[in-house]
Amino acid sequence: MIVALAGGVGGARLAHGLAARLAPEDLVIVVNTGDDFEHLGLHISPDPDTVLYTLARLADRERGWGQTDESWHFMAALGRLGGETWFALGDKDLALHIERTRRLRNGDALSQITLDFAAKLGVAHAVVPMSDDQVRTIVHTDEDALAFQDYFVRRRCAPVVRRIEIVGANKARPSPGFHAAMQSPQLTGVVICPSNPLLSIDPILAVRGVRAWLENRNFPVVAVSPIIGGKAVKGPAAKIMTELHLNVGVRGIADHYAGLIDGLVIDTQDETEIATSPALAIHATDALMRDDGDRRRLASETLQFLATLSAP
Amino acid sequence: MIVALAGGVGGARLAHGLAARLAPEDLVIVVNTGDDFEHLGLHISPDPDTVLYTLARLADRERGWGQTDESWHFMAALGRLGGETWFALGDKDLALHIERTRRLRNGDALSQITLDFAAKLGVAHAVVPMSDDQVRTIVHTDEDALAFQDYFVRRRCAPVVRRIEIVGANKARPSPGFHAAMQSPQLTGVVICPSNPLLSIDPILAVRGVRAWLENRNFPVVAVSPIIGGKAVKGPAAKIMTELHLNVGVRGIADHYAGLIDGLVIDTQDETEIATSPALAIHATDALMRDDGDRRRLASETLQFLATLSAP
Repeated sequence: MIVALAGGVGGARLAHGLAARLAPEDLVIVVNTGDDFEHLGLHISPDPDTVLYTLARLADRERGWGQTDESWHFMAALGRLGGETWFALGDKDLALHIERTRRLRNGDALSQITLDFAAKLGVAHAVVPMSDDQVRTIVHTDEDALAFQDYFVRRRCAPVVRRIEIVGANKARPSPGFHAAMQSPQLTGVVICPSNPLLSIDPILAVRGVRAWLENRNFPVVAVSPIIGGKAVKGPAAKIMTELHLNVGVRGIADHYAGLIDGLVIDTQDETEIATSPALAIHATDALMRDDGDRRRLASETLQFLATLSAP
Repeated sequence: MIVALAGGVGGARLAHGLAARLAPEDLVIVVNTGDDFEHLGLHISPDPDTVLYTLARLADRERGWGQTDESWHFMAALGRLGGETWFALGDKDLALHIERTRRLRNGDALSQITLDFAAKLGVAHAVVPMSDDQVRTIVHTDEDALAFQDYFVRRRCAPVVRRIEIVGANKARPSPGFHAAMQSPQLTGVVICPSNPLLSIDPILAVRGVRAWLENRNFPVVAVSPIIGGKAVKGPAAKIMTELHLNVGVRGIADHYAGLIDGLVIDTQDETEIATSPALAIHATDALMRDDGDRRRLASETLQFLATLSAP
């Protein structure tokens, strides 16, 4: 059994590839909830929804978020009423937010709700929020401390990042599905998907016990680089790494995950940047996922590479 | 200045006619909130929304509720998730419910929110919920006590009504706009719109001080009958009046409002049922509102009739 750690679009795409290669009982996709927030009185879970939509083949491929064939009548009507429209919520998308919010208020756990949504949307593989406890990513910038979506959507990542804080993580317990996977004797490896290491993966690692679980692992861990050709495929990873004076290339990814991973999948463009060392094996390939074929191929290669690795 | 008491579709239509005949400063439309309810975690205000949509010319004329040119993508997506779909919420309609719920949680009063919505939707006349305090109409039936929407929408008015209870009304204060209108020296009359007397108007009359205000009036009150040709134009008024062993025709309307009204507008079809008496003047006309012209005409006739009446 494989545990995949995932955040937004890149993570969802590799998770989709992994789901095409592994039986439902052999894969647990653990998703970042640090980006979750309350908006218009609704609990929005951007990363879990992106993973759900991607696996259900409902994700919009152009936009990179939300559902395909979406309509925006709610948004237009809200704008007419003078409501907040900086965070776009499609009409179909709203159904998840309203039903999730209703069930959370009813006392249901986020992870149970997400599993139920997955089942209803025809997703056979386990999509597991990292925690049912509240974790919120706060981006400290040169202007202000911003809630993640304020930074990411409202401010379009413009402010210079000084520090990223993951509020609540030290008190957050892994969700039951994640906890069970962490403890499972069937666990044979972990894949860190090509998501933003600072914004998408760090919140998962910050959940109580997760970093120690990886540090003391008796299974191999492989990360897939979200940086290709020295740039982030999507999103602000490279910009933020620069602002935090981190090495932006695949070297920076390796440094960031030092001690936590045994192998790193990189693009052939970046092969000159890093070589296999005793501490870290490198697999270079075409790491860009343009279509479903790429997702499956990269997933296959990652799993095969993982099978060659062993715990430190 | 005229105060109009209104509930659902019939009330909204006459209110629309009155708004075409009176300047914004000369009309206050007080709307039933006994039908309000929490659904999917949202605060739904069916009657205020029907009045708003009608005055904003956004109301769907076929359906009798909701907005025209509405789409139902949210509803379909909610159904796919296994959510409750018995109460239809259109994509545009949702904007009001979500924004209202957000503002109520924020501490804003329902009446202020409604006024703001009216302004944004281009409604110049005051649309005033009867109270900012919670009032809930409960329909006691031969099967069970049902919240209004459960009776009206989910059960389609099928159960036999034994008693109607208006919970919270004795503690509910008139909303600021209603209270100001009640106290206004400019007040020259009250129009009770052709809404269901038991379900739409009684909740307004049950708000603290409202019945006494009408009983001790120094201004005339006219009601427009929602019963035409012995039948309710729309909705379950006649069915419920029968079940409660009330006189179903215009006689029943006159009996119901006895002591509160000085005049009653009825349809010419019902002229044989009731005649002007010392206690109650009758004006017979074509009381069916098929189109905007009918709304304006009935409003004009009602206002002219009201001008001939005096307080008892």
